[in-house]
Formats: sequence, structure tokens, C-alpha cells
Amino acid sequence: MGKPDIGIGLIGSGFMGRCHANAFRSVSGLFDVPGEPRLRMLADASPALASAAADALGFERGTGDWKALINDPSIDIVSITAPNVLHAPMAHEAINAGKTVYCEKPLSTTAAIALEMTEAAEAAGVVTLVGFNFLRNPMIRLARDIIGSGEIGEVTGFRGRHAENYMASPDAPHSFRTDPQGGGALADIGSHIISMARFLLGPISQVQGDCRTIFPTRPVSQGSADRKPVVVDDMTHALVQFENGVAGSLEANWAATGRTMDLSWEITGTKGALAFGQESMNELLLYRDEKGRSGYTRIEAGPDHPPYGQFCPAPGHHLGFNDLKVIEVAQLLAAHCGGPKAGPDFREAYEVQRTVEAIQTSSQTRSWVAL
Amino acid sequence: MGKPDIGIGLIGSGFMGRCHANAFRSVSGLFDVPGEPRLRMLADASPALASAAADALGFERGTGDWKALINDPSIDIVSITAPNVLHAPMAHEAINAGKTVYCEKPLSTTAAIALEMTEAAEAAGVVTLVGFNFLRNPMIRLARDIIGSGEIGEVTGFRGRHAENYMASPDAPHSFRTDPQGGGALADIGSHIISMARFLLGPISQVQGDCRTIFPTRPVSQGSADRKPVVVDDMTHALVQFENGVAGSLEANWAATGRTMDLSWEITGTKGALAFGQESMNELLLYRDEKGRSGYTRIEAGPDHPPYGQFCPAPGHHLGFNDLKVIEVAQLLAAHCGGPKAGPDFREAYEVQRTVEAIQTSSQTRSWVAL
Amino acid sequence: MGKPDIGIGLIGSGFMGRCHANAFRSVSGLFDVPGEPRLRMLADASPALASAAADALGFERGTGDWKALINDPSIDIVSITAPNVLHAPMAHEAINAGKTVYCEKPLSTTAAIALEMTEAAEAAGVVTLVGFNFLRNPMIRLARDIIGSGEIGEVTGFRGRHAENYMASPDAPHSFRTDPQGGGALADIGSHIISMARFLLGPISQVQGDCRTIFPTRPVSQGSADRKPVVVDDMTHALVQFENGVAGSLEANWAATGRTMDLSWEITGTKGALAFGQESMNELLLYRDEKGRSGYTRIEAGPDHPPYGQFCPAPGHHLGFNDLKVIEVAQLLAAHCGGPKAGPDFREAYEVQRTVEAIQTSSQTRSWVAL
Amino acid sequence: MGKPDIGIGLIGSGFMGRCHANAFRSVSGLFDVPGEPRLRMLADASPALASAAADALGFERGTGDWKALINDPSIDIVSITAPNVLHAPMAHEAINAGKTVYCEKPLSTTAAIALEMTEAAEAAGVVTLVGFNFLRNPMIRLARDIIGSGEIGEVTGFRGRHAENYMASPDAPHSFRTDPQGGGALADIGSHIISMARFLLGPISQVQGDCRTIFPTRPVSQGSADRKPVVVDDMTHALVQFENGVAGSLEANWAATGRTMDLSWEITGTKGALAFGQESMNELLLYRDEKGRSGYTRIEAGPDHPPYGQFCPAPGHHLGFNDLKVIEVAQLLAAHCGGPKAGPDFREAYEVQRTVEAIQTSSQTRSWVAL
Repeated sequence: MGKPDIGIGLIGSGFMGRCHANAFRSVSGLFDVPGEPRLRMLADASPALASAAADALGFERGTGDWKALINDPSIDIVSITAPNVLHAPMAHEAINAGKTVYCEKPLSTTAAIALEMTEAAEAAGVVTLVGFNFLRNPMIRLARDIIGSGEIGEVTGFRGRHAENYMASPDAPHSFRTDPQGGGALADIGSHIISMARFLLGPISQVQGDCRTIFPTRPVSQGSADRKPVVVDDMTHALVQFENGVAGSLEANWAATGRTMDLSWEITGTKGALAFGQESMNELLLYRDEKGRSGYTRIEAGPDHPPYGQFCPAPGHHLGFNDLKVIEVAQLLAAHCGGPKAGPDFREAYEVQRTVEAIQTSSQTRSWVAL
Repeated sequence: MGKPDIGIGLIGSGFMGRCHANAFRSVSGLFDVPGEPRLRMLADASPALASAAADALGFERGTGDWKALINDPSIDIVSITAPNVLHAPMAHEAINAGKTVYCEKPLSTTAAIALEMTEAAEAAGVVTLVGFNFLRNPMIRLARDIIGSGEIGEVTGFRGRHAENYMASPDAPHSFRTDPQGGGALADIGSHIISMARFLLGPISQVQGDCRTIFPTRPVSQGSADRKPVVVDDMTHALVQFENGVAGSLEANWAATGRTMDLSWEITGTKGALAFGQESMNELLLYRDEKGRSGYTRIEAGPDHPPYGQFCPAPGHHLGFNDLKVIEVAQLLAAHCGGPKAGPDFREAYEVQRTVEAIQTSSQTRSWVAL
Repeated sequence: MGKPDIGIGLIGSGFMGRCHANAFRSVSGLFDVPGEPRLRMLADASPALASAAADALGFERGTGDWKALINDPSIDIVSITAPNVLHAPMAHEAINAGKTVYCEKPLSTTAAIALEMTEAAEAAGVVTLVGFNFLRNPMIRLARDIIGSGEIGEVTGFRGRHAENYMASPDAPHSFRTDPQGGGALADIGSHIISMARFLLGPISQVQGDCRTIFPTRPVSQGSADRKPVVVDDMTHALVQFENGVAGSLEANWAATGRTMDLSWEITGTKGALAFGQESMNELLLYRDEKGRSGYTRIEAGPDHPPYGQFCPAPGHHLGFNDLKVIEVAQLLAAHCGGPKAGPDFREAYEVQRTVEAIQTSSQTRSWVAL
Repeated sequence: MGKPDIGIGLIGSGFMGRCHANAFRSVSGLFDVPGEPRLRMLADASPALASAAADALGFERGTGDWKALINDPSIDIVSITAPNVLHAPMAHEAINAGKTVYCEKPLSTTAAIALEMTEAAEAAGVVTLVGFNFLRNPMIRLARDIIGSGEIGEVTGFRGRHAENYMASPDAPHSFRTDPQGGGALADIGSHIISMARFLLGPISQVQGDCRTIFPTRPVSQGSADRKPVVVDDMTHALVQFENGVAGSLEANWAATGRTMDLSWEITGTKGALAFGQESMNELLLYRDEKGRSGYTRIEAGPDHPPYGQFCPAPGHHLGFNDLKVIEVAQLLAAHCGGPKAGPDFREAYEVQRTVEAIQTSSQTRSWVAL
């Protein structure tokens, strides 16, 4: 009915690739998007892999050549879910081709490279979006609204964390995650709590971190008896100060036995407080003072909290992780078609990466680092 | 790549229609289904409505004539999400056409009609599935496995409930939900806790219910000053006994201020216990005795609990309500293609409805009713 | 400094006896009581036992003769913590002697006997108090205030339970608790949820119960191979209607594996709701509607909730079970000295017992029973 | 019956004085203590105050002269609950008199003075105990046992906090708590999480703190319009390293709106994890891996966890804050009579204070400080 087609090209078909594909398939049945995404091409390491993945995920064609995908005239949006080290060349190719670029986090392996990507995208004027999907949660948007409205008064403190257990075993092997370039718990998942802290409270201006390698060696591959040294952090604790003067702390930990997705924070204000944990992603806790009735109220996601209502007209029907990606893609499509700018864009992702590196530097020098 | 197409025809485009559409769009990117669902036709109250909805939800065509949809040779599976009173004629038409029938709950407005539908489907040998989607939760499947394995010993007690607040206001208006034919809290949502109780513990053989109308009148429509009597229950409490001898109680309540989706239960055994609540749908609580360590363990959904792994390879990425419908559709497609029988089929839905009516009867007669 | 001494005589030195003794020792350092309790005498099954217990619990003297204790002129208040079958003769003796009577629950083994005790006490005009200590919780008092003030609107539903696991093993032996006279889960702990329901919502006027014996036999004593039939209930579910028209359900269960003190309830109103569970005894959950902020607020006990402030001037310092008994004793001492009437008195305890028996009767007759 | 009397002298009758008095009154009815505490004397700022408090709290006599109390031959144990600045002279007087010294925390206003007190006490060989009562919780003892047994493997991380809201208002006035000597959130409540961290994981060897004054001025007294600068911290975040190599973080915050007693921590090990929060003081969360059953188990305090059984023979009857003080006093009496050494003694309290000061120093110098 007049909606333009939007050609989607996906690079990569791992966990995140599948997640992107699912979001593009679902989005227009849930959101009133300005164009209809068409799953045109999927690129993977080989033509055979790509073809099988295209078939499984509903793309029209597969290709072993990601440059061909990017430059194909049928492609409007390039989804990059390839290994981190490839983000930069792929993004530059897409920017040069004038395509909208949708890239998984981290944007790149170093802040310097991320900055080059950012400047190229800005110079070219292309739309960019980086997949910090946890920010799409209606409860996070609600939290930002509450903070912004002054409902909890002036913010006085922050305490945040992203802790998981996927590297908690000393026998969890090396992978791209333990690569000195861009690897480690802080870069891998600490970036989520940093991006969320920035989303809620603004830029972080000073940091003092303590990055720790818990397991000095790991197997070179799953089950191997051959072990190699680990040079990245398994756990980082950091003191942080925001530009607005608020002080606090954060932790990144991928060896946190018992935690599967403890992306959590508490924000304290002079008149109230907020607390959130991704393990209960459909809730936001809001504390307010009232004589005899003071306490944390457990606000449950519902139609009062956009865009929850796109998924369901009634409260109590919880959103899941994949739904966050659908929201992200809806924002991407709107921005691609000239609607409101979606974030985090490349520049914001660069700022996150710069914060990660400042914490790493402060840990090495054992001193505070200003950003 | 050799997978057959499966033509999907959807009747209705309200909340549940959108939910079905989304599931059919998503399923083959997440599950290895034996055929590729093709969204062929959508029927709605008028051709215009149907055409708009088809466009919005990704169907090829719309029609104002549900009989045409059912009998169209391109349609293999008929999804019925129309008002309850239409379920029977639509199902019979589809059964006569030899189509697989996927019907929303309740199966019909009375158990007698549901039984006719069941017998017709069984005589025709068509595949049927009724949308008790909460049963698809990996945590519910885990609960059944735990009970079946004897891990909590012999079951000794049951306490269940489905409570929501969508009719908690005396000004919530009349609708199909308050129709004497098939309406009321017990039929509308009590059917969920009954189906889940049956899924976990088997048939209920005796009941004694207490059905209550809390608000004697309601507006005839939203905001109207004209009020009409309510003849269905807002809240029902019931004593139940299962065929296996286990006794317990259940409640259905759509005027439960403060509850959005309290589909919850506790099952007590001689060696352990289980507890679940849909408001924390990614958790199952399992109690086990161990000296000094006794307590409820909060098991969080993860790849150990199929089919969670179809959505995500790591724990901590929660499923949402819409994902349950995707699981349902995956089971439907498998059954349609000759795979394992999916449940609940029409007969099971009839048994649920029969239990609902037995509770209603017992409330009227103020005495126990055997099923 | 002018405060009169109040002579305390304690009968029994088991769990509850120790609990009474501790409360009488502590109370005047925490509450501004009108008299100073003096621990004069303790009676037990033999002089030797009594003497040892008196010494351990800080009483001046022990005696093997409870009648001597009751009639001793130094005794003003008689605490009865002896086996249930002895409550009646002890209470009558104390009433005849004009003493204040503080009796553990249940008041007696049958409602008929409890009524005789009540009428005797009322005729004599003595102060009576029965140890339903869970009612002393500041959070329960807060709940009653909230209900009474109309803050949650008109009450529309009740759901309550007292579940524990102390008889959950089929090898838990017979004891006074399984005696046909006054025994069973409903009488033993169901009386707590009944008393609390009455405290919050008023009298129960109609009941339909289902009393179940889960384990047909139990050992005659701990570890014995000799087993005898059980004739009392292990678990009872009941439908209830209050005099004010509110309907609901309750459960008593001492075989509830996984529960240690699930004395819990939810009360639903037209404008809000309340929920409480003794396993989190320092919290009350209050639901209120507010656009975008609806949710249950977890109110934590603090100085805003009398008499919490007697124990601590700041919130966050939780009360424990024994503190409830101190509150009870403070109310008893005040009533003894002519202050406000403390409840539940004998009559209220009789009403609870009468409700227990009505539920038992309704289970036998399989029909509703009016009170 | 042959138990010796133990003469108790209490200095101070504020919140903690009342708490000590209550514990001494209760302890021998709950614990089998080796001597019977006799509440002999209470000292306060004036004879009149002391006399009134003695009467209210059950002491035989009051005095305005704390030296007289300490040197009275009837006094065996001196309880010091006076303002912090008086702890040192009182303790020295008591040490010189050979009395057992039971002192509230913090031990003194500076670590240097605390060390003098410690050395004097050790030279004199007197028994000392400092009131870090949160360590007495059976759940904390259980946590230490679990860690010590290796049940959660090797400890890899620590995250702790003590947050309350009693100074969260900018209009909360100055008091001894804001005195530059020994004041501030870190000293006042941060000492609790430090003592608990040491109890569980051993000494802290390196720190880097960030002490913040949130409100630059506060009223000189409650309600005064006259405001004076605040020079102590309202909130401190710190990075810590333990002697055993474990790294982590901690926070002290008395301006934490929404928190009443968030003395909480999570300890991560290679095979499991533990989590605790004082706002649910009767629970310990223990995580263990088990295929399909992984999760945190909520262990509830009960007779399996000494000395819970002294208070109650059954689980589910929660302990409260005042009960912790009773446990502390039971340990003190045992130590006084030659039984097992109770902790924390003066030396341990000095070590806590030294850690506090190291964090303060590190915040001033903006660098790590080794202890």
C-alpha cells in the first residue's frame, strides 16, 4: 500500500545474526514502520554457509563476499554481526556506498578505530546505529523519563554492574572475547552498563578502574589440554564520576558464578530512587517517600510504557530479549526513512569505547584518568 | 531447499490475530520446522478491514469471507482468532475441508458444542491445536518433567490461580467476556489454570466452586451511563480433586486489583515442591531438602530447558509472551507435517471446558460435582 | 518508682513457655508498661522439672502443682502454655481465683469447651488474652488501618493460607497435634489464618471445607516401626464467605514441603490491594493505581508503624518472632492494669474455634455450613 | 543453682544502651550462659538521668559518674555505649580496673587511639568485645562456614555495601556523626561492611576510595536555619583487594534514599556464589551449578543454623535485630567466664578502623593505599 521496500543485507549468521534476522522479519507486523524490510542478502564466511543461512533465516540470497552484499543496489541497510575485527572495514565499505549501517557492539576493537568510523559516517551523512539493545527496554526509557522529570530529585549516586557467568570456569576457552584487541569482560559486557549509565545520567568524566585476570591461563580451544595465558580482564571494578558531578561505581564481570544477566543498577536521588536488573527486565523499582507508605514500588511493564503496547495491549504479557531487538530495528527503519534519529549512533558507541579504554588505562597506571 | 510451503489462513486480526501472524512470520528463523509457513490469506469482518490487516501483518491477500479463506486450496492451516461464538462454525467448515485447525481458547461457548467440534475433528482425522500458549513455557515443561520423574516425591497438594485486573473497575464495560454464553472470569482465564493443572497433574475429577459477581452492573459500553446487570462471575474460588487423589484449590479472578498475570501455582510433594508465577515467567522455583541448605532454588530459563535454546544460546536472555506463541506454532507445524502430536487438541480443550462448567454447576447447586 | 509489681505465674516450660518467659523479662525495658512483671512461679509436670525450668528462665520458684501456682497470692497473671487438654481446667481455676488469664492457642480442644471457658471468664469479669501472636505484627496493624480507612476501596476478595512443613514427612510421628480432640492442621495452624482474616475483615459466616488426611498412618512415636491411623487433617482447603459479603478461600497445611511459615494472604479491593506473608514478616505489600507507576509498594516496618519504635528508633532493624510475643505481653499488662482491652480474648478465640469446627463439619457433610 | 552472678555496668542509655540492657535481661532465658548477668549500675550524663534510665531498663542503681561505675566492685563487665569520643577514656579506666570491656563501634575516633586501647587491653589481659552485632547472624556464620569448606570453590570476587537513608535529606542536621573526628558514612556504617568482609574473606590489603560529600552544608541542629559546612563523606565508593588476592569493591552511603539497611554483599567463587542482604536478614542465597537445576537457593534461617535454635525449635520464626545483640551478649558472657574468645575484640576493631582511614587517605591522595 505504498510503503517502500527497504532492502536488508545481513553479514554474519551467528547468535546476533539470527537475532537481527528475526527482528527484521517481525517488525512490520508489530510496528507501523515507514517501509517494509525485505531480507535480500546474507553474507557469511563461504557461499555454502551463506546459502544455508539465507535459507534458514528467510533471506532471498546468500553470498560469500560481503563487499558484494554491501555494494549490491538492492541493499539499503547493512547489518554487521561479523567478528569485531571486521566491523571497521565493513562499516567503511558501507559508508562509502552510502548505506545505512547497523553494527553490533562493540563498534570496533579500539576507540581510535571507532573514532575513524564515526568521523567517516558523519562526513558521509549516513544513518548509523549500534546494537546496545538493552537500552530499548521500555523500563529503561521510563527510568530516563523519571530522572529527567526530577521525580526522584537531584541524582546523588550511581551503582552499576554487568555480571554474567559465561567465562566463570577456568576451562572456558580462549576466543575472540579474550583477544587483547578489544577483548575482556569490560569491553564485552562492561560496555553495556557504561552505555546504560550514559543513557541515564550522561557522560562519565573521570574513572579509576581495577581490571583483574582471575584465571591466568585458559585452554586454546574447548576441551584442549593446551593452555595459553590470558591477558584481558575477567573482572573489573571501577570508580566513576559523571560530568554532572554524580559519583559512583561499576563492575564488569564475566566470571560471576550465579549471574546470567546481572545488568543492574541503582540510582539514588534526593527525593527518590530507581533500581533495575535485566534478570527481571519487565520491572522497574521506584522508591518514593510517603509517611507510613515509603517503599520501592515494583512497576511492571505495560501499555503505559511505550513501545510495550506494540507487542500487547494489556500488561502482564512480558517482553523478552528478542523483542528488544525488534524495537531497535523499528527505530532503525524510522531513522533510515528520515524519521527521528536513533541512538546510540557510531559517535555514542565511540564514547562508550573511549570510556572502556580510560578504565583500562587507569588500571594500568593505578591512577584516576580524566576523559 | 526442499521444504514444502504451508499455506496459512488467519481469521481475525485483533490482539490474538496479530500474535498468530507474528509467530508464523518468526518461526522458521528460530525453529527447524518441516515446512515454510506462507501467510496467504487473512479474513476479517469486511474486505476493507481484511485488506488493511493483511497488509499490516504481512499476508498476501485479505478477504471478508472466512468460508472462502477456509476453502481456498492455498490454505493448509486455518488460524481461528474470531469471537468465541464463531469458533464452532469456522472449525466445522475447516474440518469438513480437511484443514488443520488452530483455534484460540476457549474452544467454544459451551462444553456441548466443544464436544461436537471435537468429535467432528476426530472423525475427520484432522490435526487440531488450541491456543493455551502458557503451556509452551520451557519452565512449565520442566515442571512436568520434574513431577513425572518423582523428583519431588508423591504429589500431595495443589494450589493454583489465574488473577488479573482487567475487569477490576466497576466501570469496565460489558463485552463478549460478560456474555452469559461462555463468558465470565472462570471461562476466560480460569481455563488457563485448569489447563495447566491438567497438564501437570492430570484430570480433575471432583469440584466444588463458588462463583461470584462482584459488580452487579456494568456499563453497556465504555464510558456509557447506561448500565446492565452482570450475570457471569468476576471471581471464582473452587475446591478440586484430581483423579490421582490429589486435593487442592484454584481461583479465577479478573477483578484482582494489583495482578496483571498471576497465573500461578504451587505443587507440594513428599520430597520437594514447585512454584511458578507467570509474572516471573522465566523462573521455576524448586524446593529440595538438604541439611542446612534447604530452600527454594530459583531456576532461571536457559538452554538446559528446551526449546529455550532455539531463541538464544545463553541463559539470562528472557523469553517473552510472544515467544510462547512461536513455540506453539512450531509444534503446530510439526504436527501438521506428521510429526509428534501437539497438544492441547480439541479434546483436551473440551475437557477444560467441561471442568469449567462443572465448577459453575457446583456453585449453583452449592454441592460437589463429579466429572 | 511507684510502678506496682505484677506477679507472673507460668505453667509449662516448652517452646511457648520459654517464649512467654522471655517476653515478661524483656517487656519493661522496651515498653512503658504500667506495672513491673515479676517472675514469681513456674509450674511444670514435676517439682524437679519445675525447679530446673524456673532457674533456667529466671523465675523465683518452681512447683509441680499448677493449682498451687494459680492460687498463690503472689500471682496476678497466669500464663497457660500446658497441653491443650489442660487449658480448660487451668483457665477455670484461674478464673475462679480472679486472676488474669493468658492462654496459648487453641483455647481448648472443642468449641463447646471454649465457650464454657469464655462464659466463665465473662461472668467473672477477668481479663483474658489468647496467644495469637502473629496479630501483634505492626504490619498487620497497618494492614487493618489501611483497610479500615478505605485506602484500597471496598474489599472484593480474600485468599489466605497457613502452610508449614513440620508434618510433611509420613514418618513424622503422632503427638497431641494428631489427637482427634482438637488436633489436625486446620485447628493447629489454620486457626492463625482464620484469626487474622477475622482481625482484618470481620466474621466468617459461611464455609465449605475439604479436610484431607494425606498420610493414612504415622508412627506412634519418633522412629517407631509401629504405625497407627491418622484421623485428623494434614491439609484443608476451604471456601469462605465473610459477614460483609466478601468471598474467598483459605488453606491450612502442615505437610507443605518447602514452607516454614507461609501465613500469608492477599486482600483485593476496588482501589488497591494488600499482600502479606509471615516469611517476610517485616514487609507489607500495598498496591495502588497511578498512571505509569502502578505497582506493589514494599512497605518495610519502621517507626511509622507502632509499636515498632519501641524496639528501635530507625527503620531497617527488623523485628523477629519473639518480639511479637513482647508486644502481646505489653498489651496484656496494660489490660491487666485497666488499660485498653487487649484482644483476642477468650470469646474471640472461641469464635475462631467455632469456625474451625464449621469447616470440619462442612467437609464431612460435603455441604456449606453457616455459622 | 551454683551459677555465679556477673555484675553488669552500662554506660549510656540511648538506642544502643537500651539494646544492651535488653540483651542482658533476655540472654539467660535463651542461652545456657555460664553466669547470671545482674544489672547493677547504669551511668548517664547526670544522676537524675541515670536514675530514671536505671529504673526504666531494670538496673539496680544509677550514677552520674562513670568512673564510679567502672571501679565499683560489683561490676564485672562494663558496657560502653557513650559518645564515641568517650570510648577511649572509659575503656582505659575499665582496662586499668581489670574489667571485661564491651564497647560499641566504632572503637574510637581514630585508628591511632584505637591502637592504644588495643595495646592496653592486651597488656592487661582483659576480655574485650566490640559491638559489630551484624556478624552474630546465624546466616553470616553459615556463609563463613560455606566459604571455609570450599563449597563455592575458590573465591574470585567481592561486592559489598552498607547503604541507609538516615542522612539522605540535605536538612538532616549535624551531629556527632558529622564530626571530623571519626564521623562520616564510611566510619559510621562502612565499618560494618568492612568488618563483615574481613570476617568472611580475611584482611584487606590495598584500597582506593572515593569519599564524597553530597550536601556541602547541613543545619547546625534539627530545624535550624543556620547551616554549617560538612567535611565528612556522605557516600564512599572504594576498590579493595584482600590479602588472599581477591579483588572487589565496597560502598558506604548514608544518603541512599530508599535503603534502610542495605548491608549486603555478593561473594563469587569458582564453583558457587553467596549473596546476603540485611533487609532480608533471615536468608542466605547460595548458588550452585547443577544441570537444568542451577540457581540461587534461598536458605532460610532455622535450627540447622546455630544459634538460631536457642530462640526457637522450628524454622520460619524469624530472628530480629535485637536477637543479634542477645547472641553477642551470650558470647561475651562465655568469654568473660573463660570460654571461647569472642570476636571482634579491640584489635579487630582497630583493624577495621585502620581500613577506614586507609580508604579516606586514598581518596585524598587519589591513589591506592596499602595497609
